[in-house]
Amino acid sequence: MKLKKKERPCIRSAAGNDYTLMGKLWIEGREGTFLGHGRIALLERIKQYGSISEAARSMEMSYRHAWALLENMNRQARLPLIETAIGGEKGGGTRLTETGEKAIAFFKELDKKFERFLSMEAKRFDF
Amino acid sequence: MKLKKKERPCIRSAAGNDYTLMGKLWIEGREGTFLGHGRIALLERIKQYGSISEAARSMEMSYRHAWALLENMNRQARLPLIETAIGGEKGGGTRLTETGEKAIAFFKELDKKFERFLSMEAKRFDF
Repeated sequence: MKLKKKERPCIRSAAGNDYTLMGKLWIEGREGTFLGHGRIALLERIKQYGSISEAARSMEMSYRHAWALLENMNRQARLPLIETAIGGEKGGGTRLTETGEKAIAFFKELDKKFERFLSMEAKRFDF
Repeated sequence: MKLKKKERPCIRSAAGNDYTLMGKLWIEGREGTFLGHGRIALLERIKQYGSISEAARSMEMSYRHAWALLENMNRQARLPLIETAIGGEKGGGTRLTETGEKAIAFFKELDKKFERFLSMEAKRFDF
């Protein structure tokens, strides 16, 4: 599944009477953006494929870019979100840590609450 | 008071443990952006100065840009947000309509609720 730019996957919206309420949420750390919809999607692909290169390919993202994003996330996280195994039966691979799973769950729950917030407020347009 | 870009006046944030939750809200109409923090600030200056040119100058915005924004808002609004008087003692002037007042009040209330939402959620970081 390719993420198309015009779908604006990081933007949430709720249509009201005449107008549409739009919003965007993300989490910053010491270096700026830490987690947003794109980064969470990448973590989910890591979970699915167990490999940075396959996760990147599935999103039509370069390996280099995916690696840089993951490095940046791990560096800013209190505890690492992913870990890479060396050697082993399948020659290593990358998987989510428990913290990575928690980060995904937190963000998805936050996103749901935000959508409810927008829907509620979009019903109140009075002008 | 000049609005500096690096202050990012359209972005709200709430600091939690280790991370900061960031967010942005705006309202779209048929033509795209209809109301956001910058546009609301412009409407407030119109209310304060009763003049597009003085409102624009006070924000270090060109008259042309301010006029285009106001035209765009009026065109997308269910009812006009500002009206311009012709002639009169002070040679016309521009003022907010009742709908314009309502739009400002709605947006400011929405913004407060959004800040509360972010503060609440930023306390829940668990990763």
